[in-house]
Amino acid sequence: MKNGPVRVGIIGSQFQADGHASAISMIPDDMSVVAVASPTAGHAQSFADRFNIQRVYTDYRDLAADPEIEAGIITAPNSLHCEMAVALARAGKHVICEKPLCLTLDEADLMIETCRSNGVMLLYADELLFTPKYQKAKEMADLGAFGKVHLVKHSEKHSGPHSDWFWDVNRSGGGALLDLGSHGIVFAYWFLGRPKIVSVYSQLGTYVHREKTKADDECVTIIEFEGDVMAVIENSWSRLGGMDDRIEIYGEGGLTLANLLMGNALPTFSKYGFGYAVEKAPTTTGWTYPVFDELWNYGLPQEVRHFARAIRGVEAPLCTGEDGKTVLAAIYAAYASAGLGRKVLLPYEPTTKRPIDEWLSRTARPDVP
Amino acid sequence: MKNGPVRVGIIGSQFQADGHASAISMIPDDMSVVAVASPTAGHAQSFADRFNIQRVYTDYRDLAADPEIEAGIITAPNSLHCEMAVALARAGKHVICEKPLCLTLDEADLMIETCRSNGVMLLYADELLFTPKYQKAKEMADLGAFGKVHLVKHSEKHSGPHSDWFWDVNRSGGGALLDLGSHGIVFAYWFLGRPKIVSVYSQLGTYVHREKTKADDECVTIIEFEGDVMAVIENSWSRLGGMDDRIEIYGEGGLTLANLLMGNALPTFSKYGFGYAVEKAPTTTGWTYPVFDELWNYGLPQEVRHFARAIRGVEAPLCTGEDGKTVLAAIYAAYASAGLGRKVLLPYEPTTKRPIDEWLSRTARPDVP
Amino acid sequence: MKNGPVRVGIIGSQFQADGHASAISMIPDDMSVVAVASPTAGHAQSFADRFNIQRVYTDYRDLAADPEIEAGIITAPNSLHCEMAVALARAGKHVICEKPLCLTLDEADLMIETCRSNGVMLLYADELLFTPKYQKAKEMADLGAFGKVHLVKHSEKHSGPHSDWFWDVNRSGGGALLDLGSHGIVFAYWFLGRPKIVSVYSQLGTYVHREKTKADDECVTIIEFEGDVMAVIENSWSRLGGMDDRIEIYGEGGLTLANLLMGNALPTFSKYGFGYAVEKAPTTTGWTYPVFDELWNYGLPQEVRHFARAIRGVEAPLCTGEDGKTVLAAIYAAYASAGLGRKVLLPYEPTTKRPIDEWLSRTARPDVP
Amino acid sequence: MKNGPVRVGIIGSQFQADGHASAISMIPDDMSVVAVASPTAGHAQSFADRFNIQRVYTDYRDLAADPEIEAGIITAPNSLHCEMAVALARAGKHVICEKPLCLTLDEADLMIETCRSNGVMLLYADELLFTPKYQKAKEMADLGAFGKVHLVKHSEKHSGPHSDWFWDVNRSGGGALLDLGSHGIVFAYWFLGRPKIVSVYSQLGTYVHREKTKADDECVTIIEFEGDVMAVIENSWSRLGGMDDRIEIYGEGGLTLANLLMGNALPTFSKYGFGYAVEKAPTTTGWTYPVFDELWNYGLPQEVRHFARAIRGVEAPLCTGEDGKTVLAAIYAAYASAGLGRKVLLPYEPTTKRPIDEWLSRTARPDVP
Repeated sequence: MKNGPVRVGIIGSQFQADGHASAISMIPDDMSVVAVASPTAGHAQSFADRFNIQRVYTDYRDLAADPEIEAGIITAPNSLHCEMAVALARAGKHVICEKPLCLTLDEADLMIETCRSNGVMLLYADELLFTPKYQKAKEMADLGAFGKVHLVKHSEKHSGPHSDWFWDVNRSGGGALLDLGSHGIVFAYWFLGRPKIVSVYSQLGTYVHREKTKADDECVTIIEFEGDVMAVIENSWSRLGGMDDRIEIYGEGGLTLANLLMGNALPTFSKYGFGYAVEKAPTTTGWTYPVFDELWNYGLPQEVRHFARAIRGVEAPLCTGEDGKTVLAAIYAAYASAGLGRKVLLPYEPTTKRPIDEWLSRTARPDVP
Repeated sequence: MKNGPVRVGIIGSQFQADGHASAISMIPDDMSVVAVASPTAGHAQSFADRFNIQRVYTDYRDLAADPEIEAGIITAPNSLHCEMAVALARAGKHVICEKPLCLTLDEADLMIETCRSNGVMLLYADELLFTPKYQKAKEMADLGAFGKVHLVKHSEKHSGPHSDWFWDVNRSGGGALLDLGSHGIVFAYWFLGRPKIVSVYSQLGTYVHREKTKADDECVTIIEFEGDVMAVIENSWSRLGGMDDRIEIYGEGGLTLANLLMGNALPTFSKYGFGYAVEKAPTTTGWTYPVFDELWNYGLPQEVRHFARAIRGVEAPLCTGEDGKTVLAAIYAAYASAGLGRKVLLPYEPTTKRPIDEWLSRTARPDVP
Repeated sequence: MKNGPVRVGIIGSQFQADGHASAISMIPDDMSVVAVASPTAGHAQSFADRFNIQRVYTDYRDLAADPEIEAGIITAPNSLHCEMAVALARAGKHVICEKPLCLTLDEADLMIETCRSNGVMLLYADELLFTPKYQKAKEMADLGAFGKVHLVKHSEKHSGPHSDWFWDVNRSGGGALLDLGSHGIVFAYWFLGRPKIVSVYSQLGTYVHREKTKADDECVTIIEFEGDVMAVIENSWSRLGGMDDRIEIYGEGGLTLANLLMGNALPTFSKYGFGYAVEKAPTTTGWTYPVFDELWNYGLPQEVRHFARAIRGVEAPLCTGEDGKTVLAAIYAAYASAGLGRKVLLPYEPTTKRPIDEWLSRTARPDVP
Repeated sequence: MKNGPVRVGIIGSQFQADGHASAISMIPDDMSVVAVASPTAGHAQSFADRFNIQRVYTDYRDLAADPEIEAGIITAPNSLHCEMAVALARAGKHVICEKPLCLTLDEADLMIETCRSNGVMLLYADELLFTPKYQKAKEMADLGAFGKVHLVKHSEKHSGPHSDWFWDVNRSGGGALLDLGSHGIVFAYWFLGRPKIVSVYSQLGTYVHREKTKADDECVTIIEFEGDVMAVIENSWSRLGGMDDRIEIYGEGGLTLANLLMGNALPTFSKYGFGYAVEKAPTTTGWTYPVFDELWNYGLPQEVRHFARAIRGVEAPLCTGEDGKTVLAAIYAAYASAGLGRKVLLPYEPTTKRPIDEWLSRTARPDVP
């Protein structure tokens, strides 16, 4: 087993890449970024300058081949996740992949299989599982605070994606459901101890941003798990006033409520404004809800520290490619259910190459007996 | 037109009857309770003693026939609403009917028709439309604060119904969806200006109280309205810690959040306890969220005052039998959708005599194409 | 004893007059405004037009002499309270006087004595005692929820007075302490059951508005009551972001917290704005905390209803000239303590003709033994 | 300069010792606990077992002499702080001392002087300066969000001290003011950029725990700083329902509010209870406000990490013996003011050997001119 910080290369240079690099800089003894790859001229270099990274590539294949790195972090558009993961794995590098895992279940299988056969880890980067506030909720539930839990809710809403490519369904493969719902689905799945998903139903539409995208910008998803448990996942790309992230847990013996952003924030009124309040907040004047220790409260440093320890073999991986595939399968079923206007039982065999096409290729007009 | 307080008789002597009588006592110049009818020996008399009511009946038909009353308030079990309303109307009395309006759409038509042909009003008593906090939300929306509204949420949850008959689906006709969802449906309908309901989908089940009832005790309902608007209605009979009632309104231009109970309450810690905190709260020791001016904040005095003024002809009735029928039609479709596992388009022709049978008579196992 | 609504005349036509007239319009069976007096040409008439008042005067003496009125409500500058009350009392009219009662303790005695000898009531209008949320706190305390209460806090802060005359200490007699502290002092006094005030200490200054006023705009006052109880009263004329009004009650057996405005409000984000959020809020765009049923939650309709019933003899007056005098005596002592830099024991014999001069005439530089 | 984790010994084995050892275990690359000393038989050993510490002493002098340690952390009763710090310094060890620094200003001078002449650091451990939520407030203020700040409030209240010796004024030297007020005073001082303290006034008493202690259990302190700024510090040993820690910052351009515990917590209702909610919470059933990442949100790991870096010379020490002395001087003046019933100007020359005696030796009965 190797020692010292895990040496990683980051593929991508936008919002998610930034978050990872910042988080990694908080755990220098566990992980360090030694390379970055981004195809847009200048992007990789300016990113490298900002985070003091030595090795800069425009082609991710070169990064994958670099013997200096032990693992690659994929923060590129969803449509590229699979080929990048495969390239990394074949080069013997561990793969840390941002959500969603990829665009099709076949891609997911290929990623999982390639990593396995090359003896590297496929780590699925959903920081929600490392959020300390939500971990406290799970800790209480696991201690029996709520008796049998029968309803798990997660809601994540903001005013639209950070990166422009997400508005283009050809590159993203889906809208708010794929972008944000993947968080909620893996959260409920993990919170409940990974029970089998029985059915999925999703109501979604392009309610606000029709001029900009064909993707769903408002979405409610209901998931039935084995053992009589229900999850409700709410997502939006049209929520103004700053990002919103919340859970509610209900059991026969109690409940807990957690609000990640406004719930932790400092209610603040400023005539003059200040540096930064919270993700997606349009201003810092008037009333705002600035957050503190944002990355920590999102669980990002804890996530990369865990991944470093998993790679070093001292912790069992908490969130893997299999989880990412489970989430993707549920999202396919969710888009299909929106298109069909009915609950979709799992396993569901997708009929399209991108999740959102399960919806876009149908019009929900069910005949009712 | 008559003058002075509207003289009403109350049919029923339990929780809802109590609320109405208390609310009416706050508006003595608009309405007064002059009679009460309840079949259980002693109930009517003790109710009459508590509220200083002169005329006491065990048979509601006698109350209906009493020339001293101008209107009857029906707070009896749901299965009796129709025959009571018809009796009142035929006796020339205005009808104020608690939600849900009745058990079948045919009953609804009969109630509406009988009232019309007898020249009396059929007023549908949903106090949520008179709740000052929620009215403020609507006032802001109507002033354009949120631009076009595309998502309306209402959630009402508590630990189970006040009256025992509600656990028995033969007398109630439904569970949390019928009991509490009727509030949310009429709220969204009214908030949005009564747009046509296009479809309904409901996920529900008996998650906690299986030993006690066949009714649904946890429920999420999604309603599509004409004009690309969605409502999400959440209801529960298994939420501990006191009653919960909340709305969220989202438009392309903003949002508002209102929490009727914990949101208005005085966070309180007491070692010794005190009189009363809030509906369904199990104790007054430890941390509680006591409410103030409970009836006023629920809108009950405002509701009966409005009904008095509607009867006196000085205000147009805000909530009528037609609204009650719309809600009931949506609830039938919701139970059907839960049974079918699919979105149900409206109008939907019920196949059963009680709403909940649309669900209980089916098992949601849709075939997915 | 007379019957029907109590017929009142309002002296003044600004913010407080508006609040009273609006509140009275909500209790038409208890009270009605039949006259208004205001010296500024046009003010009284436009006020009368707005509230549909028949009788309009420029001289308050004419209003006092009007045989149509039974009581006068004084909302004029503080320096005029005494002469107006005396004129009303001598004309046989009940007096309802806004806080503070007047400017000197001699004036207070004259008002009390004149009302008594003329057989009319002197009602001291502090609506905080009628605020339903704060009444709930007192109800819990009186039921023993907190055991022996030893600390009562009240805080009222906003961005500056409604009426310009308040900035001029010649007309107001004091700043934030007199304007807002009078609420807190009477609140604590009433909450605790009117125990004797033992000592007062106030720290205050003109921290923000020096270019505009010589009055205190930020103030913390500590009051010791008989029986080992302390009150802390906080006031400000420099709190941005809308008005703030809060209490905290602590006993050996528990505590309760109540926030009158942001605590009840609907957290709202609006891109477009809307009519009205809350007193002193600078805008309705961005995040705001709009309130609902503002007058009701302030207790103003309940206050005037109670005064009507007191005048009709059906309720014992809850807040009288004696209370107003107690508050004024404490304010004199508070300003003196700020000037002396020491706790002032009561009774304290004022040395000046306006409360604020007790502070302005001294410089707090105590010699420390 | 040395490398590797700073090797420290902890003096004491109770609540504060626990917090430090836990926090240090979170930053293994910066600091490690290699020794513990506690006079009570068995305490040190069981502490050492819990935290896997090799070297165990009953006499702190032996720990000070141990060549393996570079620094000592003092968490013993206040009356022992000085002699322990002196022993450590003379042995060439850096000193990290819990608040309050010591019992007299002479002791403070001796500690500061001994550390200086022996070339070691005297670090004053007030974690409030490392609390991320409060640091965000300061960051906004320093960015000009509130314009000129004129009022800083801090409140810390709970149901009584963790360690029994604190009830005994001979060992603690003071009550809630000394125990908790030392946090608030250093917070305001640091927040404002260390302006000179002009005067102090404190109202305090033994309101609840008279049978148990002569110390103050409820306290309000007003501090005037140079530059027309005021701080209000509120402390209590009689606040039920779990610990409370809050700040409010007001400037002419805005305000911010931060609640460290209930503000971050997950509102939770549990019928069955669970492991741990929050410091001083009496139960985990019913409604509670459990916190997450408690040490991190208190700033304890950040504090010890900073101290490690200060000792390694890579960060300038943020909180030193001089700050501790400033706080102690203000506390002497505060107790004196409570005894004198007047504002006390600084510098104030103490007349007693323990802070609380400035109050206990006097009775506040000021003569008012």
